[in-house]
Amino acid sequence: MRRVSFFLVPTFQRHVFVCVNERPPDHPRGSCKAKGSPEVRDALKKALKARGVTTEVRANNAGCLDQCETGITVVVYPEQVWYGHVTLADVDEIVDRHIIGGEVVERLMLPDQPHLEGRRAFGRLHLPVLP
Amino acid sequence: MRRVSFFLVPTFQRHVFVCVNERPPDHPRGSCKAKGSPEVRDALKKALKARGVTTEVRANNAGCLDQCETGITVVVYPEQVWYGHVTLADVDEIVDRHIIGGEVVERLMLPDQPHLEGRRAFGRLHLPVLP
Repeated sequence: MRRVSFFLVPTFQRHVFVCVNERPPDHPRGSCKAKGSPEVRDALKKALKARGVTTEVRANNAGCLDQCETGITVVVYPEQVWYGHVTLADVDEIVDRHIIGGEVVERLMLPDQPHLEGRRAFGRLHLPVLP
Repeated sequence: MRRVSFFLVPTFQRHVFVCVNERPPDHPRGSCKAKGSPEVRDALKKALKARGVTTEVRANNAGCLDQCETGITVVVYPEQVWYGHVTLADVDEIVDRHIIGGEVVERLMLPDQPHLEGRRAFGRLHLPVLP
Protein backbone atom coordinates (compact mmCIF):
# COMPACT_ATOMS: atom_id res chain seq x y z
CA MET A 1 0.00 0.00 0.00
CA ARG A 2 1.36 3.39 -0.95
CA ARG A 3 1.52 5.90 1.83
CA VAL A 4 1.93 9.57 1.19
CA SER A 5 4.00 10.91 4.02
CA PHE A 6 4.85 14.40 2.87
CA PHE A 7 2.42 17.18 2.21
CA LEU A 8 3.05 20.76 1.32
CA VAL A 9 0.77 23.28 2.90
CA PRO A 10 -0.71 25.51 0.27
CA THR A 11 0.37 29.10 0.28
CA PHE A 12 -2.48 30.78 -1.44
CA GLN A 13 -1.89 34.31 -2.54
CA ARG A 14 -5.63 34.78 -2.58
CA HIS A 15 -8.31 32.66 -0.94
CA VAL A 16 -11.87 33.28 -1.97
CA PHE A 17 -14.84 32.21 0.08
CA VAL A 18 -18.34 31.97 -1.34
CA CYS A 19 -21.21 31.74 1.12
CA VAL A 20 -23.32 28.66 0.45
CA ASN A 21 -25.52 28.95 3.50
CA GLU A 22 -29.10 27.86 3.04
CA ARG A 23 -32.14 29.07 4.93
CA PRO A 24 -35.77 28.04 4.57
CA PRO A 25 -37.32 29.60 1.43
CA ASP A 26 -39.60 31.82 3.53
CA HIS A 27 -36.85 33.14 5.82
CA PRO A 28 -36.92 36.96 5.87
CA ARG A 29 -33.14 37.27 5.52
CA GLY A 30 -32.96 35.10 2.42
CA SER A 31 -29.83 33.07 1.80
CA CYS A 32 -26.93 32.94 -0.60
CA LYS A 33 -27.63 29.36 -1.58
CA ALA A 34 -31.19 30.22 -2.58
CA LYS A 35 -29.74 32.96 -4.78
CA GLY A 36 -27.52 30.47 -6.61
CA SER A 37 -24.21 30.66 -4.78
CA PRO A 38 -23.18 27.07 -5.56
CA GLU A 39 -23.24 27.98 -9.24
CA VAL A 40 -21.14 31.08 -8.55
CA ARG A 41 -18.65 28.95 -6.62
CA ASP A 42 -18.48 26.42 -9.46
CA ALA A 43 -17.95 29.17 -12.01
CA LEU A 44 -15.23 30.69 -9.86
CA LYS A 45 -13.40 27.38 -9.54
CA LYS A 46 -13.74 26.80 -13.27
CA ALA A 47 -12.42 30.28 -14.06
CA LEU A 48 -9.40 29.80 -11.80
CA LYS A 49 -8.66 26.47 -13.45
CA ALA A 50 -9.04 27.93 -16.92
CA ARG A 51 -6.48 30.61 -16.07
CA GLY A 52 -4.06 28.08 -14.58
CA VAL A 53 -3.91 29.71 -11.16
CA THR A 54 -5.20 26.97 -8.89
CA THR A 55 -1.82 26.71 -7.18
CA GLU A 56 -1.89 30.40 -6.29
CA VAL A 57 -5.58 30.79 -5.52
CA ARG A 58 -8.25 28.67 -3.89
CA ALA A 59 -11.99 29.11 -3.92
CA ASN A 60 -13.99 27.51 -1.12
CA ASN A 61 -17.46 27.20 0.19
CA ALA A 62 -18.09 29.13 3.36
CA GLY A 63 -20.82 28.92 5.94
CA CYS A 64 -23.01 31.95 6.64
CA LEU A 65 -21.05 35.18 6.32
CA ASP A 66 -23.95 37.09 7.85
CA GLN A 67 -24.58 39.35 4.86
CA CYS A 68 -27.62 37.38 3.76
CA GLU A 69 -29.65 40.39 2.62
CA THR A 70 -26.97 41.47 0.18
CA GLY A 71 -25.92 37.99 -0.98
CA ILE A 72 -24.55 36.27 -2.89
CA THR A 73 -21.64 37.14 -0.61
CA VAL A 74 -18.02 36.57 -1.61
CA VAL A 75 -15.01 37.54 0.50
CA VAL A 76 -11.46 37.62 -0.80
CA TYR A 77 -8.54 37.10 1.59
CA PRO A 78 -5.96 38.11 2.68
CA GLU A 79 -7.20 41.64 1.98
CA GLN A 80 -10.73 40.85 3.25
CA VAL A 81 -12.68 42.51 0.48
CA TRP A 82 -16.41 41.88 0.76
CA TYR A 83 -18.50 41.60 -2.37
CA GLY A 84 -22.27 41.50 -2.47
CA HIS A 85 -25.03 40.78 -4.97
CA VAL A 86 -22.55 38.65 -6.90
CA THR A 87 -23.94 36.83 -9.90
CA LEU A 88 -22.53 34.42 -12.44
CA ALA A 89 -22.01 37.38 -14.76
CA ASP A 90 -19.54 38.92 -12.27
CA VAL A 91 -17.22 35.96 -11.86
CA ASP A 92 -14.83 36.69 -14.72
CA GLU A 93 -14.42 40.29 -13.60
CA ILE A 94 -13.70 39.30 -10.00
CA VAL A 95 -11.14 36.77 -11.19
CA ASP A 96 -9.40 38.90 -13.78
CA ARG A 97 -9.48 42.26 -12.09
CA HIS A 98 -9.13 41.38 -8.42
CA ILE A 99 -7.86 37.85 -7.95
CA ILE A 100 -5.29 38.07 -10.73
CA GLY A 101 -4.94 41.81 -11.20
CA GLY A 102 -5.11 42.82 -7.54
CA GLU A 103 -7.57 45.68 -8.04
CA VAL A 104 -10.92 45.48 -6.32
CA VAL A 105 -14.14 45.45 -8.31
CA GLU A 106 -15.57 48.56 -6.78
CA ARG A 107 -19.07 48.25 -8.22
CA LEU A 108 -19.58 44.97 -6.33
CA MET A 109 -18.09 46.05 -3.03
CA LEU A 110 -20.30 46.13 0.00
CA PRO A 111 -20.14 49.49 1.81
CA ASP A 112 -18.38 50.15 5.11
CA GLN A 113 -15.11 48.33 4.82
CA PRO A 114 -12.95 50.48 7.07
CA HIS A 115 -10.29 47.78 7.41
CA LEU A 116 -9.32 48.51 3.80
CA GLU A 117 -8.41 52.07 4.78
CA GLY A 118 -9.48 53.25 1.37
CA ARG A 119 -7.16 50.92 -0.51
CA ARG A 120 -8.46 49.56 -3.77
CA ALA A 121 -5.33 47.95 -5.22
CA PHE A 122 -3.35 45.13 -3.62
CA GLY A 123 -0.92 43.95 -6.22
CA ARG A 124 -1.08 41.40 -8.98
CA LEU A 125 -0.84 37.69 -8.41
CA HIS A 126 2.75 36.46 -8.55
CA LEU A 127 2.93 33.81 -11.19
CA PRO A 128 5.89 31.62 -12.00
CA VAL A 129 7.91 32.80 -14.95
CA LEU A 130 7.75 30.08 -17.53
CA PRO A 131 10.92 29.23 -19.48
CA MET B 1 -43.65 44.32 9.28
CA ARG B 2 -40.27 45.54 10.38
CA ARG B 3 -37.75 45.94 7.64
CA VAL B 4 -34.07 46.27 8.25
CA SER B 5 -32.74 48.56 5.59
CA PHE B 6 -29.23 49.25 6.75
CA PHE B 7 -26.49 46.73 7.18
CA LEU B 8 -22.94 47.22 8.25
CA VAL B 9 -20.40 44.97 6.64
CA PRO B 10 -18.43 43.18 9.30
CA THR B 11 -14.83 44.10 9.66
CA PHE B 12 -13.40 41.05 11.27
CA GLN B 13 -9.97 41.38 12.72
CA ARG B 14 -9.63 37.64 12.46
CA HIS B 15 -11.69 35.22 10.44
CA VAL B 16 -11.31 31.55 11.19
CA PHE B 17 -12.30 28.80 8.81
CA VAL B 18 -12.78 25.20 9.89
CA CYS B 19 -12.91 22.57 7.19
CA VAL B 20 -16.10 20.54 7.40
CA ASN B 21 -15.62 18.59 4.21
CA GLU B 22 -16.89 15.03 4.27
CA ARG B 23 -15.61 12.12 2.22
CA PRO B 24 -16.79 8.52 2.17
CA PRO B 25 -15.57 6.65 5.28
CA ASP B 26 -13.25 4.45 3.21
CA HIS B 27 -11.65 7.32 1.28
CA PRO B 28 -7.85 7.10 1.55
CA ARG B 29 -7.44 10.81 2.27
CA GLY B 30 -9.87 10.83 5.17
CA SER B 31 -11.84 13.99 5.87
CA CYS B 32 -12.07 16.69 8.50
CA LYS B 33 -15.74 16.04 9.12
CA ALA B 34 -15.10 12.39 9.87
CA LYS B 35 -12.52 13.51 12.41
CA GLY B 36 -15.08 15.69 14.20
CA SER B 37 -14.61 19.13 12.70
CA PRO B 38 -18.22 20.24 13.25
CA GLU B 39 -17.62 19.84 16.98
CA VAL B 40 -14.41 21.86 16.74
CA ARG B 41 -16.27 24.59 14.86
CA ASP B 42 -19.02 24.63 17.48
CA ALA B 43 -16.49 24.83 20.31
CA LEU B 44 -14.69 27.65 18.52
CA LYS B 45 -17.89 29.64 18.08
CA LYS B 46 -18.80 29.02 21.71
CA ALA B 47 -15.37 30.12 22.91
CA LEU B 48 -15.53 33.33 20.87
CA LYS B 49 -18.96 34.06 22.29
CA ALA B 50 -17.83 33.35 25.83
CA ARG B 51 -15.00 35.86 25.42
CA GLY B 52 -17.30 38.50 23.94
CA VAL B 53 -15.37 38.86 20.70
CA THR B 54 -17.95 37.88 18.10
CA THR B 55 -17.93 41.41 16.68
CA GLU B 56 -14.19 41.25 16.11
CA VAL B 57 -13.86 37.62 15.05
CA ARG B 58 -15.92 35.19 13.04
CA ALA B 59 -15.62 31.44 12.77
CA ASN B 60 -17.04 29.75 9.70
CA ASN B 61 -17.37 26.41 8.06
CA ALA B 62 -15.19 25.97 5.03
CA GLY B 63 -15.28 23.49 2.20
CA CYS B 64 -12.29 21.23 1.58
CA LEU B 65 -9.03 23.02 2.34
CA ASP B 66 -7.09 20.16 0.71
CA GLN B 67 -5.12 19.19 3.81
CA CYS B 68 -7.29 16.16 4.49
CA GLU B 69 -4.47 13.91 5.69
CA THR B 70 -3.51 16.32 8.44
CA GLY B 71 -7.03 17.41 9.39
CA ILE B 72 -8.86 18.70 11.26
CA THR B 73 -7.70 21.76 9.32
CA VAL B 74 -8.22 25.31 10.58
CA VAL B 75 -6.96 28.43 8.83
CA VAL B 76 -6.87 31.86 10.43
CA TYR B 77 -7.06 34.99 8.27
CA PRO B 78 -5.86 37.60 7.51
CA GLU B 79 -2.47 36.16 8.38
CA GLN B 80 -3.27 32.78 6.75
CA VAL B 81 -1.93 30.54 9.47
CA TRP B 82 -2.67 26.88 8.81
CA TYR B 83 -3.31 24.55 11.71
CA GLY B 84 -3.55 20.79 11.47
CA HIS B 85 -4.57 17.86 13.66
CA VAL B 86 -6.77 20.27 15.61
CA THR B 87 -8.89 18.71 18.33
CA LEU B 88 -11.46 20.00 20.76
CA ALA B 89 -8.70 20.20 23.36
CA ASP B 90 -6.86 22.79 21.22
CA VAL B 91 -9.70 25.27 20.78
CA ASP B 92 -9.11 27.38 23.88
CA GLU B 93 -5.42 27.72 23.11
CA ILE B 94 -6.07 28.78 19.51
CA VAL B 95 -8.61 31.34 20.70
CA ASP B 96 -6.63 32.78 23.60
CA ARG B 97 -3.15 32.68 22.19
CA HIS B 98 -3.70 33.38 18.51
CA ILE B 99 -7.12 34.83 17.87
CA ILE B 100 -7.04 37.15 20.85
CA GLY B 101 -3.35 37.31 21.67
CA GLY B 102 -2.03 37.40 18.11
CA GLU B 103 0.68 34.77 18.62
CA VAL B 104 0.50 31.59 16.60
CA VAL B 105 0.18 28.23 18.30
CA GLU B 106 3.36 26.79 16.92
CA ARG B 107 2.78 23.20 18.02
CA LEU B 108 -0.32 22.99 15.83
CA MET B 109 1.08 24.71 12.77
CA LEU B 110 1.36 22.75 9.59
CA PRO B 111 4.85 22.91 8.10
CA ASP B 112 5.86 24.89 5.02
CA GLN B 113 4.15 28.22 5.43
CA PRO B 114 6.57 30.46 3.56
CA HIS B 115 4.00 33.25 3.23
CA LEU B 116 4.46 33.89 6.96
CA GLU B 117 8.12 34.73 6.34
CA GLY B 118 8.96 33.33 9.74
CA ARG B 119 6.55 35.59 11.61
CA ARG B 120 4.88 34.07 14.62
CA ALA B 121 3.26 37.15 16.20
CA PHE B 122 0.68 39.37 14.56
CA GLY B 123 -0.63 41.62 17.26
CA ARG B 124 -3.43 41.35 19.77
CA LEU B 125 -7.06 41.79 18.91
CA HIS B 126 -8.17 45.40 19.24
CA LEU B 127 -11.04 45.48 21.66
CA PRO B 128 -13.20 48.47 22.54
CA VAL B 129 -12.22 50.16 25.73
CA LEU B 130 -15.16 49.87 28.04
CA PRO B 131 -16.08 52.89 30.17
